Amino acid sequence: MSSYHPLTLDEAMQLSRTVLDLFDANSELTCQEIGDGNLNLVFHITDTNSRNSVIVKQALPYAKIVGESWPLSLDRARIEREILQEEYRICPGSVPQVYYYDDELALTIMEDLSDHVIMRKGLIEGNHYPLFSKHIGEFMARTLFYTSDLAMDQSLKKEKVKKFVNPDQCKITEDLIFEEPYRFSERNNYSPSIEDEAEALRTDHELHLEIAILREKFLTQAQALLHGDLHTGSIFITPESTKVIDPEFAYYGPIGFDIGAILANLLLHYVSVPGWVRGEAAVSAREEELLLMVQNVWTEFERSFCELWDQDVQDYMARTKGYQEFYVAKLLQDSAGYAGSKMIRRIVGLAHVADIDTINDETIREQAERKALSIGKNLVKNHRKITSITDFMNLVIDASKGKVGQR
Amino acid sequence: MSSYHPLTLDEAMQLSRTVLDLFDANSELTCQEIGDGNLNLVFHITDTNSRNSVIVKQALPYAKIVGESWPLSLDRARIEREILQEEYRICPGSVPQVYYYDDELALTIMEDLSDHVIMRKGLIEGNHYPLFSKHIGEFMARTLFYTSDLAMDQSLKKEKVKKFVNPDQCKITEDLIFEEPYRFSERNNYSPSIEDEAEALRTDHELHLEIAILREKFLTQAQALLHGDLHTGSIFITPESTKVIDPEFAYYGPIGFDIGAILANLLLHYVSVPGWVRGEAAVSAREEELLLMVQNVWTEFERSFCELWDQDVQDYMARTKGYQEFYVAKLLQDSAGYAGSKMIRRIVGLAHVADIDTINDETIREQAERKALSIGKNLVKNHRKITSITDFMNLVIDASKGKVGQR
Repeated sequence: MSSYHPLTLDEAMQLSRTVLDLFDANSELTCQEIGDGNLNLVFHITDTNSRNSVIVKQALPYAKIVGESWPLSLDRARIEREILQEEYRICPGSVPQVYYYDDELALTIMEDLSDHVIMRKGLIEGNHYPLFSKHIGEFMARTLFYTSDLAMDQSLKKEKVKKFVNPDQCKITEDLIFEEPYRFSERNNYSPSIEDEAEALRTDHELHLEIAILREKFLTQAQALLHGDLHTGSIFITPESTKVIDPEFAYYGPIGFDIGAILANLLLHYVSVPGWVRGEAAVSAREEELLLMVQNVWTEFERSFCELWDQDVQDYMARTKGYQEFYVAKLLQDSAGYAGSKMIRRIVGLAHVADIDTINDETIREQAERKALSIGKNLVKNHRKITSITDFMNLVIDASKGKVGQR
Repeated sequence: MSSYHPLTLDEAMQLSRTVLDLFDANSELTCQEIGDGNLNLVFHITDTNSRNSVIVKQALPYAKIVGESWPLSLDRARIEREILQEEYRICPGSVPQVYYYDDELALTIMEDLSDHVIMRKGLIEGNHYPLFSKHIGEFMARTLFYTSDLAMDQSLKKEKVKKFVNPDQCKITEDLIFEEPYRFSERNNYSPSIEDEAEALRTDHELHLEIAILREKFLTQAQALLHGDLHTGSIFITPESTKVIDPEFAYYGPIGFDIGAILANLLLHYVSVPGWVRGEAAVSAREEELLLMVQNVWTEFERSFCELWDQDVQDYMARTKGYQEFYVAKLLQDSAGYAGSKMIRRIVGLAHVADIDTINDETIREQAERKALSIGKNLVKNHRKITSITDFMNLVIDASKGKVGQR
């Protein structure tokens, strides 16, 4: 096969049978398209005899949003599968294994993870993931450390920066996270009941200054090869296992952007808890569990990152006494800033999270939205003053108790 | 012509006659190779009838340093001529005009500027350049502003980052400026009389921390398209005119790196003044003139950069009140840090400056070297605390009066 066209179910099955050893002559394949049709086709192919299965993912040349299509480079499929291969190498078992790819068809055949669930869904269902913080902390530490100038030959790192320049995907982030929530935009999306909050976001110059600073860092700082879209919808999970998927937004950016994405999405779930959990004591226990996860994600990341640094740092000057502390302290500040900006955009911007949007009770939903904005703004405004994870947690807790003004 | 080989004088003349309209059938060409043979061949070709002349510059596939050769990518010739064309467009008349190029031969034919002198030489001869600060301040403001995310479409900027990834040239900077002066290295080069200073550089952890921070910024921050090697040996000058040459180190980096290079080289000349100027009053007048130039380079840059920003900023969030002040304040801090690190490396590292090295009197030369190190260290150690150009000048003046310890 060659020259790009979107595959049919039959073509996807035929290709899998041809290129993989997994399916022999006796296999009886079934195929379902399970993507949301927004950015990609996702075929789930199973051999009803052996029960072996794979995922065939093919990029579409556009994103369908609010009825319109937004052209996107198919090169993101190449970026995605190269990152999967790289992450599999750096952190074995943390991402689906790539079995086959065809960059011309913008297509990758990979490990089927359907014994896992999407973490966002799992959280909404009230499941517990006691190993998640450790898994994701180590995943981020390994993938970010080993692609940074700390651990790489700096010339090879520059070639890698070049290879993962990703303008289309970055533009989505730049527009939706670092600009539109702070001005009128047709793509903004929120209920009239929080118009006061939306207006406050548009006129808060103290907030805008911090967002401008975070935006510039996102635009310029090629610190490590990020996943670039590391929310709980990009994670497949069971209580024992964590798998990161969908790295099509990967590019060289600030490390705190990935960490902030995880923290933000756990916090967005945290504010949604009263919408799902019944009984005050139960709400409170679940909230505590989630806050602890937030804290542990940072702590596990920090522990693992510093351990790798101590063992494996290649840069001579990075061995300077005090430099690791300085560097990691900045990562925490950045993580807080990016966490806050991601929380804000998920409330008033184009793309929301199901954790909040699917709360049926309007009053509870509105409270969750206001709490998310309050935490988000508190993190963004104070991110450059944070010196420890305790500071971070206090900003979250103060804001969720309404200890900072909403205007 | 095609496929790379170093040109002979005859080939350089023949090529110029063939591809340029400047030389007609009656022209009588003469050709001299005037490069230092280190990195490039530089042919100066003149028509003895019309007096028309051009420069043919061809990259060599290595750098000859300390007897050995260091392989270099010929791609730097492509980078250099593209940058010259770009700078000519952004800041007309500030660089030699490109008449012709052949990327396969790694060769550019350009405007002859031999009515100008190399600024370093002009300064050593005691010449005055009253317009320099204004010219170079505007050159840097225009070239850096218009290639940054402030003024460019961010997707196009990313493509440009990709185009000017320049690992070989950056490696030279990374090794020679941000590492070797701070450890034992065979390439370090200083007289035994300042061994105490060299040892202090190797053991000063406070200094190493700041160098590590500046190094990381150089490695990661794709802020604007830098010249990358903007010292007084890369500037052709007359009292009326300033032309910037040799942008083969160009790449996307922190804006303060270019500004710091200019400031450092003016300050390296400032410390050398007693080696050239006779009479205490004359020394003092020349020193004042140079300090004023240093201050004015920053002031003119800042004025012009802010003016361009106010007129032409494209980024929506960059219009936020207070953001310009924040951004420019950081540029001054970065400029101070890079100025200091460049001063240090020119004293103990591989490549020195003629301003100091050609001082005959050993005692005066040693004093100049110690003063340069003192200023350099003071700027590096305090760069993150600077809030105004007055702070910067005070760090210079204090250090040159010995008000900070040399160890």
